[in-house]
Amino acid sequence: MNGRRETKSEVMTTAVDLFYTKGFHGTSIREISASAGVNVGTVSYYFAGKKGLLEECLIAFFEPYLNVLEKSLNDGKRQKSAVMSAACNIIRFQQQHHRFARVAWREITLDHQLIREMTACYLRKERYLWKMLMAEDIEKGHSFKLSPSFFLIQLNSMITTPFLQSQTVRELWHMNTADPYFTKQYIETVETWFNSVTSCYGLSAIS
Amino acid sequence: MNGRRETKSEVMTTAVDLFYTKGFHGTSIREISASAGVNVGTVSYYFAGKKGLLEECLIAFFEPYLNVLEKSLNDGKRQKSAVMSAACNIIRFQQQHHRFARVAWREITLDHQLIREMTACYLRKERYLWKMLMAEDIEKGHSFKLSPSFFLIQLNSMITTPFLQSQTVRELWHMNTADPYFTKQYIETVETWFNSVTSCYGLSAIS
Repeated sequence: MNGRRETKSEVMTTAVDLFYTKGFHGTSIREISASAGVNVGTVSYYFAGKKGLLEECLIAFFEPYLNVLEKSLNDGKRQKSAVMSAACNIIRFQQQHHRFARVAWREITLDHQLIREMTACYLRKERYLWKMLMAEDIEKGHSFKLSPSFFLIQLNSMITTPFLQSQTVRELWHMNTADPYFTKQYIETVETWFNSVTSCYGLSAIS
Repeated sequence: MNGRRETKSEVMTTAVDLFYTKGFHGTSIREISASAGVNVGTVSYYFAGKKGLLEECLIAFFEPYLNVLEKSLNDGKRQKSAVMSAACNIIRFQQQHHRFARVAWREITLDHQLIREMTACYLRKERYLWKMLMAEDIEKGHSFKLSPSFFLIQLNSMITTPFLQSQTVRELWHMNTADPYFTKQYIETVETWFNSVTSCYGLSAIS
């Protein structure tokens, strides 16, 4: 890795750490450059301002996020349902990139041009991939008891909320969503929900 | 209602509308006062700055929110489980106050003094009330298949995410979380989950 790339990646890591606790709008370019130990001009040079920095942070989260889903779709050797396999992989991915996850899911709730573009591009693709994963399950004879839209809204709630609300989870429930042990336990509870709204494992699995 | 109170409430409504789309940090006092048609000094006079305004917005959401839970707890005449009754009431409450809901759940993911105080005060009380509602169910012989913490993390995900991610729900799924018709349909899907992780209605109810 050359120096230029190292500096750029360091600025991004610092920015995500700050966005994580203070939010994008609550963090100034000045704070980012001070924390990263570079001058303000360097940040502007690499990212063309704070908005460009947010854009790169969101891309840095959503690109590998969608890759995880795509890889899950192409992985034919799985033991369980295609949707549940992908959900496990996504939960593990978010645990490994928990700062990026909180920033991305929080910022996506705002309403401005960049977020609309991100939604149109990444979230539309995400929806498409989940639907393909469902189609694969349906092909295997698994049925879904909720409409695709409600199923995916709830799946999305289940797998993103603990990472978005990680502070509440830590302070109220004394669990650390950045810890692999949490994801291990949490995946089991998502499976309980999944089994109840599909016929993948039959009713006995949820009792 | 006297003029003073009307102005104060109008400023708050305007502020929530702006926070709803642009976030707390993305909105300036200047924009709020311009939109509300008052001068900057008036906003500062009523709320002692933007932070004071956020505090009042969060209080204006969480106080009645907790009242809904408390009322659900004291309502002995319910037909279904205490937790599920309360969940329905909370979903309806959020539909009616959907702008406040999105602002509150988004801001609570940030990490600063005010949010820590809000968590310590309101979310701790919320946890206590949900646990009391669970205790009432347990007394009636209903059992929970998840630990209280995981059960409540998932319940919270289910009932808050559609209101926090209302933009995604609208753009990707063409559903309007501000519409009572949405809550009616959504409550049914939460019930499906609820029935699967409790023994309130027996297994037949989820098939």
